[in-house]
Amino acid sequence: QKKSSFLVKLSSLIEKHDEQHTQKVIHSIKVGIALVLVSLLYLLDPLFNQVGENAMWAIMTVVVVFEFYAGATLSKGLLRGVGTVLGGGLGCLAAIMADDLGKIGNAVVVGASVFIFGAVATYCRLIPSIKRRYDYGVMIFILTFNLVAVSGLRADKILELARERLSTIGMGFAVCIFISLLIFPMWASDELHRVASSNFDKLACCIEDCMKAYLGVVSEKESMPSINVSGCKSVLHSKSSEESLANFARWEPWHGKFGFYYPWEKYLQIGELIRELASIILSMKECLGSPLQPSTPLQHALKEPCKSVGLSLGLTMRELGESIRNMKRCQTKVLKLESIKLELNLLSTSHKLRGIANVESLAIANFLFLLMEIVDKIEH
Amino acid sequence: QKKSSFLVKLSSLIEKHDEQHTQKVIHSIKVGIALVLVSLLYLLDPLFNQVGENAMWAIMTVVVVFEFYAGATLSKGLLRGVGTVLGGGLGCLAAIMADDLGKIGNAVVVGASVFIFGAVATYCRLIPSIKRRYDYGVMIFILTFNLVAVSGLRADKILELARERLSTIGMGFAVCIFISLLIFPMWASDELHRVASSNFDKLACCIEDCMKAYLGVVSEKESMPSINVSGCKSVLHSKSSEESLANFARWEPWHGKFGFYYPWEKYLQIGELIRELASIILSMKECLGSPLQPSTPLQHALKEPCKSVGLSLGLTMRELGESIRNMKRCQTKVLKLESIKLELNLLSTSHKLRGIANVESLAIANFLFLLMEIVDKIEH
Repeated sequence: QKKSSFLVKLSSLIEKHDEQHTQKVIHSIKVGIALVLVSLLYLLDPLFNQVGENAMWAIMTVVVVFEFYAGATLSKGLLRGVGTVLGGGLGCLAAIMADDLGKIGNAVVVGASVFIFGAVATYCRLIPSIKRRYDYGVMIFILTFNLVAVSGLRADKILELARERLSTIGMGFAVCIFISLLIFPMWASDELHRVASSNFDKLACCIEDCMKAYLGVVSEKESMPSINVSGCKSVLHSKSSEESLANFARWEPWHGKFGFYYPWEKYLQIGELIRELASIILSMKECLGSPLQPSTPLQHALKEPCKSVGLSLGLTMRELGESIRNMKRCQTKVLKLESIKLELNLLSTSHKLRGIANVESLAIANFLFLLMEIVDKIEH
Repeated sequence: QKKSSFLVKLSSLIEKHDEQHTQKVIHSIKVGIALVLVSLLYLLDPLFNQVGENAMWAIMTVVVVFEFYAGATLSKGLLRGVGTVLGGGLGCLAAIMADDLGKIGNAVVVGASVFIFGAVATYCRLIPSIKRRYDYGVMIFILTFNLVAVSGLRADKILELARERLSTIGMGFAVCIFISLLIFPMWASDELHRVASSNFDKLACCIEDCMKAYLGVVSEKESMPSINVSGCKSVLHSKSSEESLANFARWEPWHGKFGFYYPWEKYLQIGELIRELASIILSMKECLGSPLQPSTPLQHALKEPCKSVGLSLGLTMRELGESIRNMKRCQTKVLKLESIKLELNLLSTSHKLRGIANVESLAIANFLFLLMEIVDKIEH
């Protein structure tokens, strides 16, 4: 039975790996198609006659904006658009204002405005809240402002130039959006949803492994079992990737099972809680390695209840993950958790055991209870 | 005394905040200066006559490449250079190969090569190890290859165009490097060093707070003290920022107290260990909130030893931080840790106390011991 569960794990791993690989290949092909489409602006004579050298901007837009997740592409494209328009507008204004002055006055005014806007916008990029969401837009703003302001000195038909560039950027963006959203779209929201539920499974594995290892110590005494905590650690370090996924997910339009104002914040809250749980499990592992172990009679008394508690905790975690996956509440589990807590309390008071694993799993049960409430809150 | 330590903390916080603010302002001004310098290519007639419209690429380079840390600027600039040369070279090759064929054959060959190179390079960008370090270079490769390959159809003097663009990109890069490295440089290595040592201080604060809170529970019994774990959590989530800092630090030339082949890997290892320690402390906090508390006589027995252990743990952590800051070994501390462990062992065996905080602090002592060894290993 152990072997079969291992095989199941392995096959699911391969499947997951395969799936991610397929997604990457699909994304690469999509980028290739987008590049070819936008190159047609150069390759086809009638199109080239229309846009001319500005076709370059369409290619740049595609290369820079096309990201793995649809939400990321959308947000980058929109930021690029807004940044270009704002930067171009202000740049035009600066160039026109400087136009009346003489040759030298002109250069001074343009140089000063480049310095001031550049420095202020760069400072804005360093503010954490702006950096997290609008970094790319501000960068494009600086770039466009500079290009327009300084070339305003040279190009007389600056408005027309701006219009042409904007329209080619728009074409590039349209190609990106079309291919990213309509052909095998990769949604950041799906990924966030998957990560949130699979984190529960990972922790369930860790809890079960820990309990098994602890019981192993009890029976063999000598060999210190090494348990695999990589799952636990990956959960612990998931914060930044989860945040960026949630950030992209907010930009994504209605699709699949998610509505427009889907509560992405809740996922981050669940993530925070599950990371705290992961840290508790990690420190439980530390207890396993400690030289301070319960005495043998104590161990035998602990063995059975620990086993059952470990199993039901793991089961509960899996069910919670499942409930998130299917977007259903699981209210019956509250009762089960209550019974686990009761059992542990009984154990700790009646036998006067203050064993290590015991107290820890109580903390976990306690914690799962909290988690429970959050999950209930979401899946309404 | 408590008040004064609070004031010291506050003033150091303000100082740190001020320092970061000053750094941001300096960086913004540096960017402004770089932008003005590079705009001179447009603004001054003799320069403009030399480079022409290609001056645009110098401005782009400055805006895109100039980053907060010197190492980041250097790596981005070099990657941009390599990407441009490789992409331009291959693009030229593709354009020349396609040149012999007829009009339609030409378009087909260029389109196919754009598709193939675009898709393959995009797939490379999704491989984690490449993404972490060379993402930007690969993106520039795709961009340059495309621009050169498709415009090769139109521009006859493609080699000259490539040469001119490369030289302007080089000018932009030179301005960036000059300003970033020579005027008030912001080193990622300094920051990594600072973060590594300040993490020890943060955890020391957390340990002391935890111990205080635990003793507070002992004396007051009712009011649940809330302890501040934000420091602990920020340590826990420092992984990705530390990794990127180490990544930049590797690019930085010899400066200050760091040599060329400084062991940045060691910092990541310390970071990993200290994150494990942070997770243990976090779960210790969880124990504080648990309904399962030691009985009153037990609590009184625990009070004094816990206090002394907490204090000396905090002290040791601070000293470790200090030793990293000054890049000196601290070997005397090993003895101190040994004495803490002895004390705890004595406590746990003689009184038959298996109190919660006790076992936890043993785990911490154990852990500090490990940390100790690592620190010794580094500062040779």
